[in-house]
Parts: sequence; C-alpha cells; structure tokens
Amino acid sequence: MATPVRPLLVDVHTHIYPPSYMDLMRRRTQIPKVIKNAEGQEMCVLLKEEEGKGANSKGRPVGPQYWDRKEKIKFMDTHGIDVSVVSLANPWLDFLSPSEAVSAATDLNNDIQSYCATYDSAAAAESTKFSALTEKRLYAFGSLPLVPGVEISKVVEAVKQIQGLSYLRGVVMGTKGLGKGLDDPEMEPVYEAIAAAGLVVFVHPHYGIENAFGEMDNGHVLALGLGFPFETTIAIARLILAGVLDRHPSLKLLLAHSAGALPALSSRLSSCVVHDPHVKDRLQHDFRYYLGMLYYDAVTYGPEELALTERVVARAGKYEGKEEELAYDQRVNERKDLLAPQGEYPGCDRIMFGTDHPFFPPLGSAQGDEEPRWKSVDENLDAISGVAGWGDVERAKVMGGTAVEIFGLEL
Amino acid sequence: MATPVRPLLVDVHTHIYPPSYMDLMRRRTQIPKVIKNAEGQEMCVLLKEEEGKGANSKGRPVGPQYWDRKEKIKFMDTHGIDVSVVSLANPWLDFLSPSEAVSAATDLNNDIQSYCATYDSAAAAESTKFSALTEKRLYAFGSLPLVPGVEISKVVEAVKQIQGLSYLRGVVMGTKGLGKGLDDPEMEPVYEAIAAAGLVVFVHPHYGIENAFGEMDNGHVLALGLGFPFETTIAIARLILAGVLDRHPSLKLLLAHSAGALPALSSRLSSCVVHDPHVKDRLQHDFRYYLGMLYYDAVTYGPEELALTERVVARAGKYEGKEEELAYDQRVNERKDLLAPQGEYPGCDRIMFGTDHPFFPPLGSAQGDEEPRWKSVDENLDAISGVAGWGDVERAKVMGGTAVEIFGLEL
Repeated sequence: MATPVRPLLVDVHTHIYPPSYMDLMRRRTQIPKVIKNAEGQEMCVLLKEEEGKGANSKGRPVGPQYWDRKEKIKFMDTHGIDVSVVSLANPWLDFLSPSEAVSAATDLNNDIQSYCATYDSAAAAESTKFSALTEKRLYAFGSLPLVPGVEISKVVEAVKQIQGLSYLRGVVMGTKGLGKGLDDPEMEPVYEAIAAAGLVVFVHPHYGIENAFGEMDNGHVLALGLGFPFETTIAIARLILAGVLDRHPSLKLLLAHSAGALPALSSRLSSCVVHDPHVKDRLQHDFRYYLGMLYYDAVTYGPEELALTERVVARAGKYEGKEEELAYDQRVNERKDLLAPQGEYPGCDRIMFGTDHPFFPPLGSAQGDEEPRWKSVDENLDAISGVAGWGDVERAKVMGGTAVEIFGLEL
Repeated sequence: MATPVRPLLVDVHTHIYPPSYMDLMRRRTQIPKVIKNAEGQEMCVLLKEEEGKGANSKGRPVGPQYWDRKEKIKFMDTHGIDVSVVSLANPWLDFLSPSEAVSAATDLNNDIQSYCATYDSAAAAESTKFSALTEKRLYAFGSLPLVPGVEISKVVEAVKQIQGLSYLRGVVMGTKGLGKGLDDPEMEPVYEAIAAAGLVVFVHPHYGIENAFGEMDNGHVLALGLGFPFETTIAIARLILAGVLDRHPSLKLLLAHSAGALPALSSRLSSCVVHDPHVKDRLQHDFRYYLGMLYYDAVTYGPEELALTERVVARAGKYEGKEEELAYDQRVNERKDLLAPQGEYPGCDRIMFGTDHPFFPPLGSAQGDEEPRWKSVDENLDAISGVAGWGDVERAKVMGGTAVEIFGLEL
C-alpha cells in the first residue's frame, strides 16, 4: 500500500437493499412497501407520514443505487470514499414473522458477505477515475432476526454466523429489540453474544415518534430531522438507564446521526437522574460517563454540532462513579481546572464519518454517468473540516482512522 | 444603586402557582390535579406518567415554595439571585373552558402584578441575609387564555392587559396554542399583538411525547429529561417552518431549557429542508438563520451544551438568505475563514440564566429556615462558569446583563 497523501476516508453509515430484500418489499401492501407511482417510478414508502396519498405518495424514489454495487462504488469514487461499511437500511426485518426473519437474516448475511468479498478493486480500477488507498473497499454490518416472538437462541446463532463471515464486522439494529425496546431484559443474551464476538452494533432509527408533527405539510422534514434522532436518543437513554453498559462494558454501540440529541441533553438527563428517587441509586456512574463508552457517526451536518459530540466524549471520564458532594466554591474551582483548554480531542477516537447514502440525493439530479457531488455528503465533510480547534490529526481520525481501528479494517 | 462588585444575577425561568391557581388544581379529579398522598402531603400530578398509582402516586410534593413570595425570596437570597422574572408553571390554563380561561387569565395577571409590585425590598432587607443590587426584585410573565375554542379577540385583549401591567414583561406559553400547535395560522393575530406590545414570549413544554418510554420504571427521568425538551424542539421547528419568524421578525421568543434539542439538530433540520421538495422554497433563509432570532435560557446543566447554544446563535448570520451553490473547495475555504477563532461570543446577548425553581429541589432536604443551596441551581451556575473561552463579560451577560436588556428591567 502506498503512503497516503490524503487521509483515508471511510463511510460507516451507508445503506443497501439487496435484490432479495427489494422483492420482499415489493410484495407488501402495507408500509414498509415499494410501490410504483403514476410515472412508473418505484417509490419506497417507509414512514407513516408517507402513506395513504395514492399517486401523490410522498415516498422516496428507489432505484439501482440501493442494490447495485457499481452504483455504490461510483458514489464512493465521486466523493473520494476509500472504504464503505454498508448496512441493510431500515426497517430491516422488522415486518417479518420470526421464522421468515431467521431465514432472511441468514440469506442476507451471506449475500452481503458476497457483495463485499467478490469486489475486486484492482480489476475495477480501470473503470473508475478514483485511485483508492486500499484494495478492500467494502465491509458490512450483518442483520439479526430481531422480531417479537423469535427464539433468542436463533438471534444468538445469527450473531455467530456474522462472526464467521470475514467482511462482516458488526450488526445493524433498530430500536425495538424484540418488540419492547433495547432496555428489554430479554435482550441480555444478545448483548452478551455480540460483545463476546467483538462486533460493533450500529443502532439506527426507523419509527420516529408519534402524533407530534401537526397538520401542516412539512414533507419529511420533521420525521427525519427530529423523529429519527429523537428515537435514537430515547432508545440509548433507556438502554443506559437499564444498566446495559454497566453489565456489558465492552459492548461497542455506534449511534446513527451522532446519537441524535443525546449529547445535547446528557447533562439534563444526569440532573434528572440524581433528582429522582426512583433512579438515583441504580447506575454505577453519572449518566454522562456512559457517553464516553459509545461510538458516534459524524452525520451532524454542522461543525458546531460535531464539536459537541467530541466534547461530551472528552468530558465523560470526569463523571466516573458517583459525584461527591463538594462545597460550591470548591467545585467551581475544580471545574475550572478541568475545563482548561485541552491540546487534545480524545472524542475523535469514537467518531466516524458517514454519508447516509443512498438517502438525501441532490434534488433533481439526473442519474447519468457523471454523478455530481452530493450536498448532503459535502455538508458532513465540511462539518469535519470546520470544527474549531481540530487539526490534521483529528480530521484524519474522524475521516477514517478511527473506523480502521474500531472495525479492524485491513488496508 | 451601588456599583456592583459581582455580576447581577437574574433568573428568567422560575415558576409560581398563585393560591387561586392551587385551588383550581385541588378541585380537579383528572390530571393536572393536586392530591394528598397517604402521608397527607399535597402532591402535584401533572404528567400522564404520574397518574393511576393511588397512594403510590409519583406526583411531586407541592408546598408553599410554589405560592408564598417569602419562599421565593428566601430561595433567591440563598443563591444570590437579585431579580426573578416569575411565570405561572405548566400546565397554565390549558385545562379550563374558554370562558373560565379568559376570567382566570385576567385575575392571575392582576395577582402576579401585585405579587411583584407590593414587594418592598428595602423593608425586607432586615429579614434577609442577602444585599440585592436592585430595589425591584420581582418581575413576571403574564398568562394568556390559550385554549381551544377561545375567541381570538379575548387573547389579544389579555395581551393588552399584560402590556398595561408594569411588572409584567412578557407572556408564558405552552406549545399547544389554540389546540393545534404554535404553527396554527389562527395564532397570527396573537403573534402580531405580542410583537407590537414588545413582550417576550416564554415558550415552555408540558406534554412531552407519546408512547416512547417503555415498560421500565424510570421515574420522571425520561418525561422531563427528554420529553420536555423534545416538545419544545418540535414546537419551535414547526413554528419556523410555518414562516412565523419570516412574518414577525420582531417577535421575541425565549425558549425553555435552552431550546431543548433545537441547537443540536438545527443543521440536520437545515439539510432536511433543502432536500425536501415540499419545503425547500418556503422560507426566506436557511433554517439555521432563525436560531439567531431566538432567545434561550441557560438551563442546560452543562457547559459544553451551553457553549453549543451560544455557537448556534453566533453562526446564524452566516445563514441569511438562501445558500448559493459554491464549488466544494471554495466552500471549504470560506468555511475555514468564517470559523477562525472569534474573540467574541455574540450568542451571549440571547442567553439568560434560569433555575426552574421550585422544581428539582435537593432530594431529602428539610424545609427549614436555613435553605441549602440547590444542586440543580449550582449545575446551571457551574455551566456558565465552565464554558471554555468565556470571560467575565460573557458570564455577566448570561447571568443577568442580557435579561436586563431584553426585559427592560429597572435597577
């Protein structure tokens, strides 16, 4: 491998719908489903907000960029992305029966292994304008048959299958678990198996929140802009409050959209915990400590937001254990010492670039051979280059170095 | 007035339930209500999560700190708070019929004017250990009869009543408006009247979000820690998307809990807007611009979170108008220039200290004459002293200087 003249760029948030999954969706009559609109364009209808509009459905166009590996590589080349760690997009297998889900997960994991393993970047180099820094350009998260009523042993078997597939380095997971959320005690064997396998869990939203967005037609803005990050925030707050990270400290959770609102509300949550007699003695640490045990994508769309994600990781170690009661003046003075400007940004060891491809394409763009740069991708690259204080080292970590470490990518 | 030897401290987020309001709540059998628990302690049951537990109700104790002005002043003295701008706590008048709400608002506004106007700090000085920097220590937000079915002219009359009451400098408002939210076109005359009167609108949550918090008993942590800030975030995102700030640029909205998750999700919302054909051409500016038109309390409980609030205000001017399409390299370079370290923190002109008193008292504290300092208050003072980069000027603004300006407080 040649010495990089630019930082390696790894995309940890990039989705696919393999052909077999598309067929599952095309056969459905309820959301999630794939339909054809009046113009014959296939539309993916995933969210409640999109349903019931007939020919005027607000579903989103779905095409080969979702299943064709060449389209993924073309997108990567356009944006200088060396490696993608792909994942099945929401809603995963949530709509299947337990037996269907078990069977579909097995097949999908094998399919995705093949999707990654059979790509030969040397042979493909002729057809691309981009010279990658690595031979292996595709890795993946596997899928688990996490549906209500499934035998937990079947989920654990899927974890073991994924562990045995060389290009699969984690699992993608929604927020429902077995139907009751990620704080469900029934999930314990799953967490144990995943932690033992050393896999990364990519936690991603799908359901949003209910009955909150009013009568005005705001398209997808509120469901995606707020519903999605709120869902992730709630799921992980519940998981922390249930003691999952106390019991499984080696569990690696990578949170979509930089954990949504969790960084911004973590001190408020901490204060609510210590003021609540039902909860205050439950956890081993201050709530904020647990944010230093998590991993985050860098899909924030703004540098100030991304800076906060780094800072909540950087400060987490200060919140180990239970807070001692100090006098006010003493605490203010200690606080000032702790907050002295730091030369380092340790949070960058837990933050990784992502694109959310193939969602958020440029509006009105033709799907020709010359793919334009995507604004949604550039916003997230701009965010990384724009964080005040970060230097080349920090940017290189977030762009790819951290992902290489966490996923054990081979260059 | 003597020259201050310390910054003036003004609390803009501090609640009361006047005696007449308590009587309304005691008469109720459904939430919101005030009940007596098995120990004879009056408990305030406001949230769905608290209901239906009988003697084990998880409601919160309510006592004289909610209605007795002496208790408010004692709390202020203990924490060095010079001035409080008090507001009726949630759920305000939401549970009343239109005619009851109109009558209750009129009475409450007169009561609260009297609460503030008849306090004589010179006479009271003997009985307090605290030497205030001002004679006038109490101001207030008034209440509006915002309930479904109310005649809008009655709401506008209440705005005018409040404008005529000298100690009332704003109105407190939930997120329901007339039942359909703050983006309801029927609210236009209310916004127009409030903007014309120069009053500050304190937007505060009450309802949280639905069906999201699972089966585990986490006390109030999720409803207060996440449900509240999510509600505010959604309400203001909807208000912005409805064009309210385009039509009423002089409207002053002060957002509880530092606007919840709005700062952290504002770039994501911006990206969702420009990628949505239903919304992209609706607003005059990039979504982030509007965050520079808002006001924020400093109730974040952490310095890193508070720093973000300041930064999203500071950057807002860059997002005036619609973004021009620049080449990627050009945009990155411009971005770097814009993000060069700034000597100033302009966001401090829009951020104001608050306590959320009398909520979040120290657990297990006796209500004796010697009131202990409250941890929840110190967390928010620590946050202000802990923001990296802020100096005495910035801290003094957030502690009180900004509130003096925005509310026109007389010292």
